[in-house]
Amino acid sequence: MAYSPLIDQLVDALRCLPGVGPKSAQRMAFHLLERDREGGFKLAQHLEQAMQGVNRCEQCRTLTEQPKCAICANTKRDHETICVVEAPSDVVALEQSGQYRGTYFVLMGKLSPIDGIGPEEIGVSHLLTRIQQQQVKEVILATNPTVEGEATAYYITAQLKALGVTVSRIAHGVPLGGELEFVDVGTLAHALEGRQVIA
Amino acid sequence: MAYSPLIDQLVDALRCLPGVGPKSAQRMAFHLLERDREGGFKLAQHLEQAMQGVNRCEQCRTLTEQPKCAICANTKRDHETICVVEAPSDVVALEQSGQYRGTYFVLMGKLSPIDGIGPEEIGVSHLLTRIQQQQVKEVILATNPTVEGEATAYYITAQLKALGVTVSRIAHGVPLGGELEFVDVGTLAHALEGRQVIA
Repeated sequence: MAYSPLIDQLVDALRCLPGVGPKSAQRMAFHLLERDREGGFKLAQHLEQAMQGVNRCEQCRTLTEQPKCAICANTKRDHETICVVEAPSDVVALEQSGQYRGTYFVLMGKLSPIDGIGPEEIGVSHLLTRIQQQQVKEVILATNPTVEGEATAYYITAQLKALGVTVSRIAHGVPLGGELEFVDVGTLAHALEGRQVIA
Repeated sequence: MAYSPLIDQLVDALRCLPGVGPKSAQRMAFHLLERDREGGFKLAQHLEQAMQGVNRCEQCRTLTEQPKCAICANTKRDHETICVVEAPSDVVALEQSGQYRGTYFVLMGKLSPIDGIGPEEIGVSHLLTRIQQQQVKEVILATNPTVEGEATAYYITAQLKALGVTVSRIAHGVPLGGELEFVDVGTLAHALEGRQVIA
């Protein structure tokens, strides 16, 4: 550390951001100090407000400043269908598709014993209670098609067996606009396995 | 924008940082909200303090929260020698070399008419006044060896001619540990031109 105390503190604090090392932190600090004080003040204020005000939705566990998020609080949504995703950004992605009218359950992670993330951390018991209380008919598993995502989907499926609820997994295959030639073998295997009769 | 208002505001505010686009801003916001609230609070606080407290050193124009920076306030430094650099980070780099005991003058930029940065913006008149008042003997120009940096050095040299002060430019040549084979032609040309008789 080499600048005046307030600047050193700022550079140090900026390093809590993911992907920001000492050089980028320094660049960010000087940019704000020399060219964008207003942006710096605004960032400080919005950071404070968000850190203070944002909690988890009591129903779907996503991040929100209300007790219930906008989707859970919307009575026009289909509350008998729950889509299970890993992160709040997955909710946004699915909402942008415009195809889904049900509600969500956000795991805020995926099963990963090596990182100490077990069923309790991803709120599986919370999901089971909700399914029983709200007479849910279908649970759509939309975890990512990675090793941990698949393991998480598998674990949740096993837990749901006794509840008599329909459990489905979103389709994995060749993405629209993708060319077979450039799609990886795992995806192709999934695409073949998940083929549907059309005629 | 797609999250709850406080999160949207935070993502938006994070984009004032250089090199941070919508996706990185989102990743940063979720990282802080899910995993590092304490870091987020600390960043908000240090941002606020720095934006409020940091000003320019009245003597060398570098960023500091005191009226004079630590180097200008240090009476043990040689105040008859001024090294002119473009940015506060250049001061730190030169200090780390451990070779320099004089003071600095930080331009906080370089001449760049296309960006509207002229002599007034880089404080040339302030430098001239300081040289006259403090009986400075030598001015070392350490602007970067880029087109703008060279033009800035050239302009300052012309301004200093009438003051009877020694003006020098730091040496440009092959860096230590560098191999001739991999050094660019401009640097080699400088290295040849700046050769010194050793025997």
